[in-house]
Amino acid sequence: MMTVTAYAAASPTADILPTTIERRDVGPADVLIEIQYAGICHSDIHTIRGDWGPQTYPQTVGHEIAGIVSAVGSDVTMWAVGDRVGVGCMVNSCRECENCKAGLEQYCWAGNIQTYGGVDRDGTVTQGGYSTHIVVDQDFVLRIPESLDMAVVAPLLCAGITTYSPLQHWRAGAGRTVAVVGMGGLGHLGVKIAAALGAEVTVLSQTLSKEADGRAFGAAHYYATSDPATFEKLENGFDLILNTVSAEIDMKAYLKLLRLDGVLINVGAPAEPLPIQVFTLFGNRRSFAGSSIGGIRETQEMLDFCAEKGIVPETELIAADQINEAWARVLASDVRYRFVIDVATMEQPAA
Amino acid sequence: MMTVTAYAAASPTADILPTTIERRDVGPADVLIEIQYAGICHSDIHTIRGDWGPQTYPQTVGHEIAGIVSAVGSDVTMWAVGDRVGVGCMVNSCRECENCKAGLEQYCWAGNIQTYGGVDRDGTVTQGGYSTHIVVDQDFVLRIPESLDMAVVAPLLCAGITTYSPLQHWRAGAGRTVAVVGMGGLGHLGVKIAAALGAEVTVLSQTLSKEADGRAFGAAHYYATSDPATFEKLENGFDLILNTVSAEIDMKAYLKLLRLDGVLINVGAPAEPLPIQVFTLFGNRRSFAGSSIGGIRETQEMLDFCAEKGIVPETELIAADQINEAWARVLASDVRYRFVIDVATMEQPAA
Repeated sequence: MMTVTAYAAASPTADILPTTIERRDVGPADVLIEIQYAGICHSDIHTIRGDWGPQTYPQTVGHEIAGIVSAVGSDVTMWAVGDRVGVGCMVNSCRECENCKAGLEQYCWAGNIQTYGGVDRDGTVTQGGYSTHIVVDQDFVLRIPESLDMAVVAPLLCAGITTYSPLQHWRAGAGRTVAVVGMGGLGHLGVKIAAALGAEVTVLSQTLSKEADGRAFGAAHYYATSDPATFEKLENGFDLILNTVSAEIDMKAYLKLLRLDGVLINVGAPAEPLPIQVFTLFGNRRSFAGSSIGGIRETQEMLDFCAEKGIVPETELIAADQINEAWARVLASDVRYRFVIDVATMEQPAA
Repeated sequence: MMTVTAYAAASPTADILPTTIERRDVGPADVLIEIQYAGICHSDIHTIRGDWGPQTYPQTVGHEIAGIVSAVGSDVTMWAVGDRVGVGCMVNSCRECENCKAGLEQYCWAGNIQTYGGVDRDGTVTQGGYSTHIVVDQDFVLRIPESLDMAVVAPLLCAGITTYSPLQHWRAGAGRTVAVVGMGGLGHLGVKIAAALGAEVTVLSQTLSKEADGRAFGAAHYYATSDPATFEKLENGFDLILNTVSAEIDMKAYLKLLRLDGVLINVGAPAEPLPIQVFTLFGNRRSFAGSSIGGIRETQEMLDFCAEKGIVPETELIAADQINEAWARVLASDVRYRFVIDVATMEQPAA
């Protein structure tokens, strides 16, 4: 075991404060990563605040992790000290179910082991990336292409793959119309990725306040959902709608924007069930779907795609002691578009 | 105008009683059909009872129609007097929207003109198949293959195409596992068609009372949904679930039965919105979809497929004066599996 610096919440209502946590010794298949940057995802807040169910405390969250390999286990062949690497939302899975075998570990039937708040194979609760170091099985480590700046890349590990995977799966691309609902951490990357895939991208945001940004990210159209005329004008308009909003929205109004065989894909996660009118699905043979991050192979593909296309998250770099303020700003939708913690600012634990 | 015998409801709560209705004169593109048989669909009851919204009364329902062409308009080239024909749930559409042009008139953006209770192009309210004659545009008439018995074929025009279309669209076939929820009018044809397509079919019915029938129709497995163990045993088991039940069921329990990229397709139509947990859709990248009948081209394809495979509905033939009793039995799920009205039993109108 090694003791490392981290920021953790002691309860659902607590601030995120400096502490130390234990990391397991580097096993034969493990990689020790010195974390340089960690993104702040809305999921971090939902988890700590108990929105998605009870948690174990103290807990260190963070599942958008970029760093440098500082040690490897005896059986590790894929990674070497000094490699630029990332870790996303999961750190292991059963590896035996149909989905794991297909490289879709995110859909592991036993439940993938999440980067924080999950129960690891040794029975301990996993602790995330708001920390100076992490030990991860080599198969759940990603390679960060040289052209991607370490200081901004971390949000690709959750927000990037969460939008890339469904856009690929449901064939966003040339000749297809894609609406992205919400222009936050996920949404802004959804716009960039869908545009890079060749789709005609429309942003549906509450107001037009981020329109210039949306167009700069590649959107061809931008509409305010606070204006009812938006929903009349765009009826039957989209092949895909990527819903990045985790608050409840009027699904019937959005579903009616889908054309033939259109799919509304949820990547945001409201805790409460949403009321869905089957009659609305009858029109245009619509589907209401969900998608969860991506598999490890696809996450690597996404990083390589972003490097090739020059896609990086828009970020605001903060020091570790600004996490609580940043969380408050995330809840107020006051971030363009993702906070990244500079882990170098974390104090070392007392000797 | 011609006056023809029909059975109609005078109000949402009225019995279905003999009367006369007007049919338009046979226009240049029209076909006059002497109706021999009309199926009783649960939708007939929902419509008259106002479950799906207010209606115009008196109304003659029925959208599973089999008969013989008895006159054709001057421009009609596709049909001749004496042809064995059918009419299903729609009798016209805009013909100009994206979906109509693609042969998917059921998804007409202007709304297809339904066989009963719709507003026809001349502004009149359409009247359905519980009647001795109907006048229909030639493009919305189907050919009934010689090998299909007229006395039992009618339910294919709604129940048949409603199950065939989504099974084809979502690729039910060899190597795919399909669950059919409900063993009623739609469900029993869903089982026959899915089995004929080569899928491994499971019936999910409230009880095992129809198990022998289900297996005879082609189901490999049959489970009672009243037994909670069913849902544990079948988790992650199906590529497709065809939900033919229009009452509200516990969608979360059913959605969890879908494996990777599985789709739960609703062809039953509850009036109220259903609560859907997005977290349940995240697992296995599931979809919740709707499908509505089929286009005219596909309906003909379905009839030809059923002829080739020897698929016919299981029916109970009734006289016209038994309609009210039959409706009561439909509501009590006491029918194996579709009532068909022998239209020859309708009294002729007083001269």
